[in-house]
Amino acid sequence: MDILALNCGSSSVKYQLFDWDKKVVVAKGMVERVVIGDSFILHEVPGRETYRENSDCPDHKTAVDLILRTLTSPGHGVLTDIKQIAAVGHRVVHGGERFTKSVLIDDDVLAAVTEVQHLAPLHNPPNIAGIEGAMAVLPGVPQIAIFDTAFHQTMPEHAYLYPLPYEWYEKYGVRRYGFHGTSHLYVSKRIAAILGKPASQCNVITMHIGNGVSHCAIKNGVSVDTSMGLTPLEGAMMGTRCGDIDPAIPAFMMQKENLSAKEIDSILNKKSGVIGITGRFTDRRDVIENANGGDNLCKLALDIEAYRLKKYIGTYMAVVGKLDAVVFTAGVGEMGAPIRERAIEGLEHLGIILDRERNASAMTRKRETLITTDDSPVKVYVIPTDEELVFTEDVAAILEGTYTDHMHFEYSFSKPDFVRK
Amino acid sequence: MDILALNCGSSSVKYQLFDWDKKVVVAKGMVERVVIGDSFILHEVPGRETYRENSDCPDHKTAVDLILRTLTSPGHGVLTDIKQIAAVGHRVVHGGERFTKSVLIDDDVLAAVTEVQHLAPLHNPPNIAGIEGAMAVLPGVPQIAIFDTAFHQTMPEHAYLYPLPYEWYEKYGVRRYGFHGTSHLYVSKRIAAILGKPASQCNVITMHIGNGVSHCAIKNGVSVDTSMGLTPLEGAMMGTRCGDIDPAIPAFMMQKENLSAKEIDSILNKKSGVIGITGRFTDRRDVIENANGGDNLCKLALDIEAYRLKKYIGTYMAVVGKLDAVVFTAGVGEMGAPIRERAIEGLEHLGIILDRERNASAMTRKRETLITTDDSPVKVYVIPTDEELVFTEDVAAILEGTYTDHMHFEYSFSKPDFVRK
Repeated sequence: MDILALNCGSSSVKYQLFDWDKKVVVAKGMVERVVIGDSFILHEVPGRETYRENSDCPDHKTAVDLILRTLTSPGHGVLTDIKQIAAVGHRVVHGGERFTKSVLIDDDVLAAVTEVQHLAPLHNPPNIAGIEGAMAVLPGVPQIAIFDTAFHQTMPEHAYLYPLPYEWYEKYGVRRYGFHGTSHLYVSKRIAAILGKPASQCNVITMHIGNGVSHCAIKNGVSVDTSMGLTPLEGAMMGTRCGDIDPAIPAFMMQKENLSAKEIDSILNKKSGVIGITGRFTDRRDVIENANGGDNLCKLALDIEAYRLKKYIGTYMAVVGKLDAVVFTAGVGEMGAPIRERAIEGLEHLGIILDRERNASAMTRKRETLITTDDSPVKVYVIPTDEELVFTEDVAAILEGTYTDHMHFEYSFSKPDFVRK
Repeated sequence: MDILALNCGSSSVKYQLFDWDKKVVVAKGMVERVVIGDSFILHEVPGRETYRENSDCPDHKTAVDLILRTLTSPGHGVLTDIKQIAAVGHRVVHGGERFTKSVLIDDDVLAAVTEVQHLAPLHNPPNIAGIEGAMAVLPGVPQIAIFDTAFHQTMPEHAYLYPLPYEWYEKYGVRRYGFHGTSHLYVSKRIAAILGKPASQCNVITMHIGNGVSHCAIKNGVSVDTSMGLTPLEGAMMGTRCGDIDPAIPAFMMQKENLSAKEIDSILNKKSGVIGITGRFTDRRDVIENANGGDNLCKLALDIEAYRLKKYIGTYMAVVGKLDAVVFTAGVGEMGAPIRERAIEGLEHLGIILDRERNASAMTRKRETLITTDDSPVKVYVIPTDEELVFTEDVAAILEGTYTDHMHFEYSFSKPDFVRK
């Protein structure tokens, strides 16, 4: 059977088709400029050239239709019959407090996702549009929701509640939810396998550093705290997001520059972080190159980013108890050796002893690499993430009736002999 | 000679008269309801009953005049001649980036304090009014400014800059400043004396927990990071302030409840923190009592507050390198044994081993008490703060021409044989 994973953004739909029996990715790609016009699909099949087709997609349903048409097209497709698709897995950003694991979507689930869309107004509406589109185009095919927030629903109350008027929590659901759940799940299972211990006995800190950045404190295998909050704006410094700042600053700057709530929100989300400091870059490769070339603002951006990563490692060491390992993952976490180095150097007194050579060698998205010395009490690993594999395994397990939740279900990648393809 | 210390708030003026030769507090008190009407003075002299006098103070100058009149009154005063006041020390909340130490006030200094008042619109204007009032009432007497921010001006750029548009820093001075500087200074000197090392060789974390709460990472005797930021809203959970939250929340709630920038600022500053969660209390004694009595929101408030203290200890352990000691100070830090216990229990893996009995015994504002076990690698102390003593010694040293800055000047309390009065 084949499983289609869909990730619907406001103006894009990413997809991946996975052959569950052969355990291989058959095709993947993306429809861009959905809704906004001049849309097109980029379709990748291993061993073939990337195929591009311009095709108008005024809504997410048309985009899902275009994906299915491409997957079954005689010239560029990989399926002879659309019925080979046994199920669709949808990334849903915000599951509120209700969803603690992946679920089969029915009207009730769809209503619940719609109910919390005010918490993720940029993300949940396109997720819902994608689900409805796929339901219309593939009637009768099971649709499954995988939530960014579900992994963090094990956080205790004192970690997820903010020191704000309590009625904001009751009325509007203002609390810490956390995101990047499937990535934190994946690498926390992998590190347990690498350490040779059950996940339920591992205390680890996972650092997902991509365009968005979030960290997770994992105690006995479950998330007990995470750096993103009500929204993905809180926590680390990111490509364009500020992360942690004085909460007085939004109102202060609104008054200074006569900005509306929407405008300040947009600046904090889109013009802050790395681009805010450097004025030019979000891609850390550009920042590192220009810092090496003597650009002071790029140096500063690296120093701030790494310093804030270091602080979070300390924060979560106080949270998880005796720490087994720190894991870096996602684009920058996997490739940004100079950022990792700055973040973990000088932490010897906390049991982290960097091995500079190993760290410098870990610059690929394929290999799991130890970057501390052999005698470092706390291990630090670079582990390539694989969110799509979590999607696919959750979908297959729900179809097969073997799924429980991420704490009890045994993923292929939680086994010691797992080999990444 | 006598030194008068003044602390002018928006509607109050606190004062303390110190006899420098005898090293004793001669009188202290407060004028309340300045500007707003029905003002009165409460005047305390050791060994006498507190004296109260109603007297209209439409501005800070009148309040300063009332204080001087009371200090020299035949019935309730302590001075025969106003000329015994050799100098006045003024608490100034915000010194921006210019003031790294206490200074003699002249027109230039007053202009500089006025220039940064937009950073502390609630605090600097009354501070300035108090300075101008004292200058008018005591012409020719040296006036000295002691800044809340000065102690933190040793922070490195990567610690004080936010991941925000860099021009906000250039145009408006948006950066971390930190507050409670004289308190962090005092206890960091005291802990060095207790540890028997020069302050310049001590790495400590100081936790000032009063109605306002701030923490400071002190490396080799100087502040390298602190939890309050551009304003005193950032950092720990406080009596009425939220501290660290997702920076998207202000704009989110403004849109939900149709609030202005000023209104949201007021809620985050005055209706959040302990009162936000409990709905009733800011005083931690009430919270502890009701938590013990079974009130779930009070329990929750304690759990959140202590959890966030614990996180900051971890954060700053990553910042300062090998840690010598943690110090708790100010009202709650000195008296709130159950909060301290919750904050530091479970940190044995980081070298902090709580002694429950010692901690429970440290419930006075008079005694410096070790609250970890004798074999705890990191010591934790409760140390009563004394901001007024810092004020007085800075003023005297400036008068005597011996003052340098807080790193080089030798305070009486930095000596091992110092005895608190």
